[in-house]
Amino acid sequence: MNLDGFQRHYRQRIDQLLQQHIDAQPELCPTLKAAMRHGLLLGGKRVRPFLVYATGQLLGVADDILDAPAAAIECIHAYSLIHDDLPAMDDDDLRRGHPTVHKAFDEATAILAGDALQTLAFSILSDTPLPTPLLGNQLQMVSQLARASGYQGMCGGQALDLAAEGQKVGLAALEQIHRHKTGALIECAVTLGALCHHALPPAELAALQQYAAAIGLAFQVQDDILDITGDTATLGKPQGSDQALDKSTYPALMGLEQAQAMARDLHRQALAALATLPYNTHILRAFADYVVERTY
Amino acid sequence: MNLDGFQRHYRQRIDQLLQQHIDAQPELCPTLKAAMRHGLLLGGKRVRPFLVYATGQLLGVADDILDAPAAAIECIHAYSLIHDDLPAMDDDDLRRGHPTVHKAFDEATAILAGDALQTLAFSILSDTPLPTPLLGNQLQMVSQLARASGYQGMCGGQALDLAAEGQKVGLAALEQIHRHKTGALIECAVTLGALCHHALPPAELAALQQYAAAIGLAFQVQDDILDITGDTATLGKPQGSDQALDKSTYPALMGLEQAQAMARDLHRQALAALATLPYNTHILRAFADYVVERTY
Repeated sequence: MNLDGFQRHYRQRIDQLLQQHIDAQPELCPTLKAAMRHGLLLGGKRVRPFLVYATGQLLGVADDILDAPAAAIECIHAYSLIHDDLPAMDDDDLRRGHPTVHKAFDEATAILAGDALQTLAFSILSDTPLPTPLLGNQLQMVSQLARASGYQGMCGGQALDLAAEGQKVGLAALEQIHRHKTGALIECAVTLGALCHHALPPAELAALQQYAAAIGLAFQVQDDILDITGDTATLGKPQGSDQALDKSTYPALMGLEQAQAMARDLHRQALAALATLPYNTHILRAFADYVVERTY
Repeated sequence: MNLDGFQRHYRQRIDQLLQQHIDAQPELCPTLKAAMRHGLLLGGKRVRPFLVYATGQLLGVADDILDAPAAAIECIHAYSLIHDDLPAMDDDDLRRGHPTVHKAFDEATAILAGDALQTLAFSILSDTPLPTPLLGNQLQMVSQLARASGYQGMCGGQALDLAAEGQKVGLAALEQIHRHKTGALIECAVTLGALCHHALPPAELAALQQYAAAIGLAFQVQDDILDITGDTATLGKPQGSDQALDKSTYPALMGLEQAQAMARDLHRQALAALATLPYNTHILRAFADYVVERTY
C-alpha cells in the first residue's frame, strides 16, 4: 500500500471507531454527547492515529491492538482543539469550515465536551482488553499519553504559546513552544504504537521517537513556510495570516531560505533515525517526505 | 484513632503529597504551574482522599500504596472546581474565601490549569510503581477514575446540572444530577481504596460501593437541609442561597421533614452495607454519622 492508500484506509478506520465510541455512550445528556461528537468527528487528517497504526504495523502488531491507543490519542487532540478555540483562548468561530463547538453549542458545553473527551481518552486506553503480556505496556501507554498531553507536554505548550502572544520570541523559545504544543503528542503517537509491541528493544523505540520528534518539528516549520509561499485557496486560511498577526515564525526569525534548510535538515534526521531500524519503514519514510513536500 | 484525628492526619498527608506533585513539575511555564497549585492547594475537607485512605486501611493496605489514588482523585476534584467556577459555568469569584483560579490568574490559564490537573491525575495513577500483583488493579483504577469523572460521571452530572438551571426538576432528575455530579467520584474514592487490595471479594467491593453511594447522596440531601436550617456564619454561604436561586432541592421538592427522613434512611443504608463486612469499619461508620449530623 502506498502512503495515500494507507492514510485513506486508516482515516476511515479511525473515524468509524471514534463514531462507535461516542455511540456507545448512554443518552444521559444528549447535548453534551452531541458536542463531543461534533468536536471529535469534524474530520481532519488524523495524523496521530495514522502514526500509531503505521508504527505498530511496521512492528508486526495487529490493527485491532492499535485501535485503542489510536482512538485515545485522537480524543486528546480533539479536546485540545475545542478548548483552544474558546473565546478566552484563540477565540475561533470556525474550524475546517464548520462552527467550533462553543459556536455550535455554547461555552459551558464546549468546556465540558473538551473535559469529557480528555477523560474518554483514558477510558478507552484503560478499558480495552489487550493481550495479557501487554498489561504493563498498557499502563505505560496511559502514563505516556498523560505526560505528552499535560503540563509537561501539550497543555504546557499551549500556555507557553499564549504567553508568547504579541511578543517576539527567539528561536529557542519558538522551538520549545512547538515541541510541547504539538511535538509531544506526535512523538507520543509513535510511542503508543511501539508500546503495542510487547518487547521492543529500547534502542529501536528511541529511533522511532527521534523520527517523530524530527517530523513533528518539520511539520511546524513547513506550516510557517507555507504561510508565506502558499496561496490562500490551498491553505484553507488566508496566506500570510501568521505574518499579519505578528506571530513569531521560523521564516520571520531566520529568513525563508534558512527555514527551508531547517525543514530539509529535520527531514534528513527523520530518515536517518528510520535507517537504523531493521523493519520495512516505507510508509513512515513516505510520510516524512510528505511533511516537507506538501503545499497545504 | 477517632474520626477527627484520622481526618486531620490524612488531610495533612494528602496536602503534603499534592504539594510535592506540583513541586515536582518542571519550571516550563511558571504561571500555569502557579495556577495549578492555587486550584489544588486551596484547602478543603479532602473527603475523597479520606475515603481512599479509610477504605484501604480497613482492608489492611499500607498508606504508601493508597497515596497515588488519593492524590489522583483529588486532582480530578480540583480540576472540576476550577472549571465549574469559570464565567461560562457557575461564574464564581471566590472559593473558600480565596479568589477562584480565573480571578487570581485569567480565564485561559484557568481552563488550562483544569485541563492539566485532570491529566496530572492520570499521570499520578499510572506513573506510581505499585507492587506487581496490583498491576491489573492499577489499570482498573485508571478505568474507574475515568468512568467516574467523565461523561458517564461527574462531567455528565455538571452538564445535567447546567441544563436544569432555572427549571423545576423532579426528584428522580435531582437524584440523577447528584449521583453523577458528586456521587460518582465519592463512590470511586471507595473503589480506588478497595482496588489497592489485590484480591477483594466482589461482594465486599459491592458493599463498600453501596456505602459510598448512600453517603454521597446523603451528603447532598444534608447540604440542602442545612441551606434552610443552618445559619449563614457556620455555612460559609448565605443561608437560603439555594432557595433564593430557585434551585431544586430535596426540601423544596419533598418538604423539610421528608428530606430529613431521607437523610436518615440513606444513613441507615450506609451502615447496613458496612455491617456485612468482616472488618473494623468504625471510621467509615463515624463518617456516615458525621455526614447527616453535621451542621455546616
